[in-house]
Amino acid sequence: MINIVVVGLGEMGASLAEILNTQSNNYVVGVDINEQSLRYAIENNLVSATSSQLRDVAPQADVIVLATPVTSIEKNMHQLAKMVLKENVIITDTGSTKRDIMAVAEEVLTPMNITFIGGHAMAGTHQSGVTYANKHLYKHVTYFLVPSSMSDSRRLQTVFKPLDAKFITIDIVKHDALMAIISDVPHVVAFALMNTATAQLGQATLFGQYVAGGFKDTTRIAASDSKLWADVLLSNKQAVLESQKQLIKQLNFFSQAIENNDEDALITLISDARQSRENL
Amino acid sequence: MINIVVVGLGEMGASLAEILNTQSNNYVVGVDINEQSLRYAIENNLVSATSSQLRDVAPQADVIVLATPVTSIEKNMHQLAKMVLKENVIITDTGSTKRDIMAVAEEVLTPMNITFIGGHAMAGTHQSGVTYANKHLYKHVTYFLVPSSMSDSRRLQTVFKPLDAKFITIDIVKHDALMAIISDVPHVVAFALMNTATAQLGQATLFGQYVAGGFKDTTRIAASDSKLWADVLLSNKQAVLESQKQLIKQLNFFSQAIENNDEDALITLISDARQSRENL
Repeated sequence: MINIVVVGLGEMGASLAEILNTQSNNYVVGVDINEQSLRYAIENNLVSATSSQLRDVAPQADVIVLATPVTSIEKNMHQLAKMVLKENVIITDTGSTKRDIMAVAEEVLTPMNITFIGGHAMAGTHQSGVTYANKHLYKHVTYFLVPSSMSDSRRLQTVFKPLDAKFITIDIVKHDALMAIISDVPHVVAFALMNTATAQLGQATLFGQYVAGGFKDTTRIAASDSKLWADVLLSNKQAVLESQKQLIKQLNFFSQAIENNDEDALITLISDARQSRENL
Repeated sequence: MINIVVVGLGEMGASLAEILNTQSNNYVVGVDINEQSLRYAIENNLVSATSSQLRDVAPQADVIVLATPVTSIEKNMHQLAKMVLKENVIITDTGSTKRDIMAVAEEVLTPMNITFIGGHAMAGTHQSGVTYANKHLYKHVTYFLVPSSMSDSRRLQTVFKPLDAKFITIDIVKHDALMAIISDVPHVVAFALMNTATAQLGQATLFGQYVAGGFKDTTRIAASDSKLWADVLLSNKQAVLESQKQLIKQLNFFSQAIENNDEDALITLISDARQSRENL
């Protein structure tokens, strides 16, 4: 029997708990500060047991999944480093940037000989909370695993097999550079486009009537949570700044071609983008 | 009876023709270089008559709608300036940028005392061709009207009433500045994001597996036609360059806040964008 503790029964944690809990050789324990979430989780068989205190259930765990916001993940890591855990315990998380979390892991868990593997699934919707648990959330989804200096990801992949995700082991620098360009900078672009439009045209209530589907799609993710995204951007600072620089370089290629009335250059720039978009 | 000639039976022209042709006091004539399109239009009652030659039907027209690509619109305007037309004829077009077309109108039509009103509906899909004629294409859609120095848009609005569009009379400069920020620059941003991703990560076939919905939405319009968009960007040069400059300024606000670890500034920038997006 594998004892799996999932901390944080939001959409990501609750879905993961539910999938692993369907396996007869797993015993999944849900931890959350919200009593209602715990009740929902046990009543709907997302977990086999619940607890409001990580310290009460961590000592029995073979696998601990930290699925809370990044700042709580780091607090939990400090807390776990001070406890007596099973010798072969694996701790993993679900945070979307890995540099800060891996730094904490190397600082407090590695010295205690505790295996930590950073995790980040390209899953999740705009919805949040335990009621959005979804058995198919991880299906065929890219799931990055970032081992610490003392660990490898094979044992965790075996436990996580029922998620049916595409596991990819990747190092911190590559992971964060990738996130900068495919997730962080697109958000900044959407935010900046909205702010440019407002600065030039006034309130969105005034110009909203004119916009077509293209503007709406390009700015959809501008409606994201501000505290969450401020934290994401700051926690991936170097990679985001570098990608922003590259994006501005590319924007300037367009400005130069337009400035020079260089239709051929523009057609090449747009064709490249189009082909790339069609190959996504 | 109002004689209406529609030149170019693509999605925009054919839809407009079909809607106006349902009115018993209109007689709609379709002009196209494609004989198959003409046959389809007459067989499906989109028009009451057809012609492959504008010069054969223009002299009888009360309203002439130029619904072809921009370069053909300008050729047709030169052609019409040399013909003997009805004294009260109204000529209008459907091109998405107005500066060049209005310049041609002032140069060749105004001196002949011919009324020209530039038109641009925020309608249209990715589909093209006469078979996509749609009676609801213009319904509740913003339809910009740009009168020339000698014309006003009231008579045209009366004829176009069955479109059920929201007509807005606007001057060239305001129209083109608006298009720059709500349509042209979002396209450039989508193109530039794709090209940045390719430059940093290699071919899209390699990184496509990692991207989530946010990246896909933000870059959806990068799959647009390259010749068409090179022409749009060049025909709206000044406004596009100005909006690009403003966008880069906004992007730099983000870079500065990230560089300074200024979480409060970031949260404000993102909250502004979010609120604006939610008010669209």
